[in-house]
Amino acid sequence: MAIYHPARKTPFNIIRSGYIELGVTDIQKSRDFYINILGLIETEQCEDSLYLRGLEESSHHCVVLTKSCEPIVKRMGFQVENKEDLSRIEALLQQLNLPVNFNNDRHHTLQTCDPLGMPIEFYASMPQVARNLQKYSTYRGCRPMRIDHFNCFTPDVQKSHEFYSKQLGFHLTEYTETDDDDPQLWAVWMQRKGNVHDLALTNGIGPRLHHIAFWCPTAMDIIHLCDVMATSGYVDNIERGPGRHGISNAFFLYVRDPDGHRIELYSSDYLTVDPDFKPIRWGLHDAQRQTLWGHAAPKSWFEEGSLFVNTTTISPRLKAQPIVAN
Amino acid sequence: MAIYHPARKTPFNIIRSGYIELGVTDIQKSRDFYINILGLIETEQCEDSLYLRGLEESSHHCVVLTKSCEPIVKRMGFQVENKEDLSRIEALLQQLNLPVNFNNDRHHTLQTCDPLGMPIEFYASMPQVARNLQKYSTYRGCRPMRIDHFNCFTPDVQKSHEFYSKQLGFHLTEYTETDDDDPQLWAVWMQRKGNVHDLALTNGIGPRLHHIAFWCPTAMDIIHLCDVMATSGYVDNIERGPGRHGISNAFFLYVRDPDGHRIELYSSDYLTVDPDFKPIRWGLHDAQRQTLWGHAAPKSWFEEGSLFVNTTTISPRLKAQPIVAN
Amino acid sequence: MAIYHPARKTPFNIIRSGYIELGVTDIQKSRDFYINILGLIETEQCEDSLYLRGLEESSHHCVVLTKSCEPIVKRMGFQVENKEDLSRIEALLQQLNLPVNFNNDRHHTLQTCDPLGMPIEFYASMPQVARNLQKYSTYRGCRPMRIDHFNCFTPDVQKSHEFYSKQLGFHLTEYTETDDDDPQLWAVWMQRKGNVHDLALTNGIGPRLHHIAFWCPTAMDIIHLCDVMATSGYVDNIERGPGRHGISNAFFLYVRDPDGHRIELYSSDYLTVDPDFKPIRWGLHDAQRQTLWGHAAPKSWFEEGSLFVNTTTISPRLKAQPIVAN
Amino acid sequence: MAIYHPARKTPFNIIRSGYIELGVTDIQKSRDFYINILGLIETEQCEDSLYLRGLEESSHHCVVLTKSCEPIVKRMGFQVENKEDLSRIEALLQQLNLPVNFNNDRHHTLQTCDPLGMPIEFYASMPQVARNLQKYSTYRGCRPMRIDHFNCFTPDVQKSHEFYSKQLGFHLTEYTETDDDDPQLWAVWMQRKGNVHDLALTNGIGPRLHHIAFWCPTAMDIIHLCDVMATSGYVDNIERGPGRHGISNAFFLYVRDPDGHRIELYSSDYLTVDPDFKPIRWGLHDAQRQTLWGHAAPKSWFEEGSLFVNTTTISPRLKAQPIVAN
Repeated sequence: MAIYHPARKTPFNIIRSGYIELGVTDIQKSRDFYINILGLIETEQCEDSLYLRGLEESSHHCVVLTKSCEPIVKRMGFQVENKEDLSRIEALLQQLNLPVNFNNDRHHTLQTCDPLGMPIEFYASMPQVARNLQKYSTYRGCRPMRIDHFNCFTPDVQKSHEFYSKQLGFHLTEYTETDDDDPQLWAVWMQRKGNVHDLALTNGIGPRLHHIAFWCPTAMDIIHLCDVMATSGYVDNIERGPGRHGISNAFFLYVRDPDGHRIELYSSDYLTVDPDFKPIRWGLHDAQRQTLWGHAAPKSWFEEGSLFVNTTTISPRLKAQPIVAN
Repeated sequence: MAIYHPARKTPFNIIRSGYIELGVTDIQKSRDFYINILGLIETEQCEDSLYLRGLEESSHHCVVLTKSCEPIVKRMGFQVENKEDLSRIEALLQQLNLPVNFNNDRHHTLQTCDPLGMPIEFYASMPQVARNLQKYSTYRGCRPMRIDHFNCFTPDVQKSHEFYSKQLGFHLTEYTETDDDDPQLWAVWMQRKGNVHDLALTNGIGPRLHHIAFWCPTAMDIIHLCDVMATSGYVDNIERGPGRHGISNAFFLYVRDPDGHRIELYSSDYLTVDPDFKPIRWGLHDAQRQTLWGHAAPKSWFEEGSLFVNTTTISPRLKAQPIVAN
Repeated sequence: MAIYHPARKTPFNIIRSGYIELGVTDIQKSRDFYINILGLIETEQCEDSLYLRGLEESSHHCVVLTKSCEPIVKRMGFQVENKEDLSRIEALLQQLNLPVNFNNDRHHTLQTCDPLGMPIEFYASMPQVARNLQKYSTYRGCRPMRIDHFNCFTPDVQKSHEFYSKQLGFHLTEYTETDDDDPQLWAVWMQRKGNVHDLALTNGIGPRLHHIAFWCPTAMDIIHLCDVMATSGYVDNIERGPGRHGISNAFFLYVRDPDGHRIELYSSDYLTVDPDFKPIRWGLHDAQRQTLWGHAAPKSWFEEGSLFVNTTTISPRLKAQPIVAN
Repeated sequence: MAIYHPARKTPFNIIRSGYIELGVTDIQKSRDFYINILGLIETEQCEDSLYLRGLEESSHHCVVLTKSCEPIVKRMGFQVENKEDLSRIEALLQQLNLPVNFNNDRHHTLQTCDPLGMPIEFYASMPQVARNLQKYSTYRGCRPMRIDHFNCFTPDVQKSHEFYSKQLGFHLTEYTETDDDDPQLWAVWMQRKGNVHDLALTNGIGPRLHHIAFWCPTAMDIIHLCDVMATSGYVDNIERGPGRHGISNAFFLYVRDPDGHRIELYSSDYLTVDPDFKPIRWGLHDAQRQTLWGHAAPKSWFEEGSLFVNTTTISPRLKAQPIVAN
């Protein structure tokens, strides 16, 4: 077992984690949560979908909330550099016997699944709208600037990591492995845009979405969100934090949306663009990897996640570790 | 010439700077500025007056904006401990041959003028309303918590200081004086509530109001106000700062309301309740007393102020100092 | 059973919580913790005692750490306005049959015990030293500005509250009481200096010290302390938080010093000087009173405290409440 | 006249602005400034050079301070992806008749000049050292995380921009141009690492270095640096700010080192990795492009810069614009 570092050079260029479409059971409740509480901006509402973006984003949306009879993840997309990259990724997928479908509903999208069955998409461009970065009077909630990353459960971190690193060119930045004689990868953090991650994968029943994260300017904004949620009827939606991750060095807060989808508010990681960057290893028994300050995460944080649409989950290859104090 | 320290014990107890009533020419413009931009809370609007308070205040108002044909200061009040204190102050004023009037319009108020002709008032209580401190979702602008102090021009700082310190019991915390052989008081900062000031007095054409100040939680909130004003049509209303005062150690910003009344946003001074507290002296040529970081204040900041209603101003006793770099 | 509000007028004026002397088993370990980690300033070390103060304090010390064979609280003092006040308090204590002793070791101090046997002291003045508020290059740790309050266990909150409020003139600001038909006071927060408290008392085996608190400028400084402690060998000394108290609205962190004495880092409460201030009641089952964001405090926080020297503790009058989620 | 956007695809990959070597006249004075005041970390001192890095950097250095008889810029380097890229850049430079020299003093470096005569270098790797990101107890000054960018005067922005964009593949993010009928490029901001810039170029006597910038976590850290400098004998080294740039949205402060080299402390710009990113145009008469809040920059800021070693400067192609209020 091994980490893949550096990532293999690919003939295409994946830019960043781009958008997610979440099935939600009550658009009005979700609207209140994502816009009034978190502070995302509404770009458009049409039919059963609400399109949202962060304060600095000029892309049309990073989150789509779609009326659904149950909480579900419908789509999860990565942006690539150009249309030709979509064809190059298509060729790779065919070579790997992975499914390929093009969807042109709103923008040209290549849809597939990874080898573990997790649905992912690629797109080269999206309609551009106004950047609200300097419309300061509209700032609300935790001032979410942009989508930062996706974090998913996979039943086989080793195999998932191999796909994303060797085939898709994701760069490993940090990882945890078991502390025994034959160490196994427990979780990986991989990036394309130059900070700690665009995609993290962790051992568990999967594929499932663990959380999506929004990048916030400072810890103060995240603390303000705690205060707002605690006094606006959302105190029970605060799941974990605020705190500092050992891994990534991020100041974090985990909250649950009205359907239970988990959202991380994330700040202050670091730049990873250097070609001589060395991934950081953490042992599974180092409690500070999770919370530098020593706090335990709740059981729900280790166990609960959102299902992807039309996807079968399986049990993880590695036996669940006892939930330690942190 | 001398400073009065400690203040003389008085038979009454002035608690703090309490409220100000400003005449404004356009209530709607002022409403937008004080509520949407600064972030004060509307308690009540009735007839031609708008009553505002800070986020932590349970008193009905600290600012009253009243329709007026010209910008003017109508009333400026200090809270005292109880009704008996009003009678005790009344007795003092009569002894000093200062005017006395009781006004019961909205709450029982003793109105007078100081020896330089500046109108001031005293009141023991005010209707109480909800404290919004923990209604975090309503926070806006620079999150102004409470009124902090009044700062006024007086033509004779020495004489004014003597009245407020010896007769009314205000405690001197910091002061500037000229650097010559016969040093003269140039400005004084005096407190009742236990931080650096409830009332500051500075040499100039007076009596006039230089500014009122609101206490904000952190420098970050004040920086956010700069960003909001700069992108909401109020960039020209930013007059000075943000910066750090040497005097008081406050992080400050001075802005002008739509009628030109000057507002300070103020944070991070210090506790002054100790009986063994020693006032801090600053020489008039120490530029860092004004801005610790060395920035000059604009000419308008030294010269402009708001007139009090029905009050005659006179030239200052001390010759104006050249406006130095700071 | 009732709260005492307003406090009775007293013929003396208690200014604020002033200093504490803690017995510590290893001065060097304590020095590292209080100075290098927390960021307090050393005023003086002599014989077996280390004298510390906050960044804005000009009093000689607010904390004395004295070599001791076991962790203990040796002295806990409140400052009064002047020497005459000491005589007036002496008269009161004699009238109440409470012990009186004058100690002139370093500054003139009146020593006594409250009716529950908790040792307290009073002093009018202390040697003054330089205020380091504007020596910014020396700021470290969480930038502790000043001592804020003492929090103590008492076996009878009702009786303790009566003494401090009726006899000593402490003003009640917030309180918790049981939710049954005959509500009993569970904890009280009482102030003299104009913010939420100088002294809090909570039901438990007592008298014992629950914690002392230092006032910090912003939540960011407290978060930085978490990061510093977590990466300097003190991660296990972080006991609770950071978080927001419902009571007092303070942003807080509780840490334990090398001997287990509990320290709170405290920020952002509110002004309480108004004579028309109304104490805020919290029901014992309102979890947000403790942590607005809903986090539970650990068992140790409810049970552990520091003993006072030569003091017998007794069990609390009210039965311990089950430790709820928060 | 035109902007070059998108940048031309290049056969090599420039990663980011990497390091600068500054000639300084007194290493001890510079050491105090860069380490004790700004908060950079010393990696190594050898012979006449001091090697410094930011708190999150694992590269050996981003700043080299070398004893010199006069203030000068000795070297300015960009990191590339690998050694092969150096050969590919060498080929390009030869084709453009630009000088090529390889220097192996400390790490393998390709040295050249741009078409305007500005000395620049390229390197693929540098010795790696410990990342201090989580050594929180060592944080000082403004907590500078990493080098962010270089800003240089050029006598011909159009020509310089063409070189960096068309030949080297720098992506334009923001630019200013004259407001007349035949608009001319006045300044350009160009990036490789995915935020607003690695290199900015502005019209003026050149080539000269205008400033180097360090990325800081929050505005609060930059404000703390103002406080530290103002009270540590460096008040006159504060040249401009703090403030918010309209361009880049950065919170900024400009200070001068003991030799007059200009340093920017920089925070809170935005992500620019999207392939559908559109450069932002600012008219030269829009004062908010420079300071969103409307403050003027001092004359020195427009006129002064550091010379490059062995480099002849010439007057700018465009006539100097009157220095407007901002």
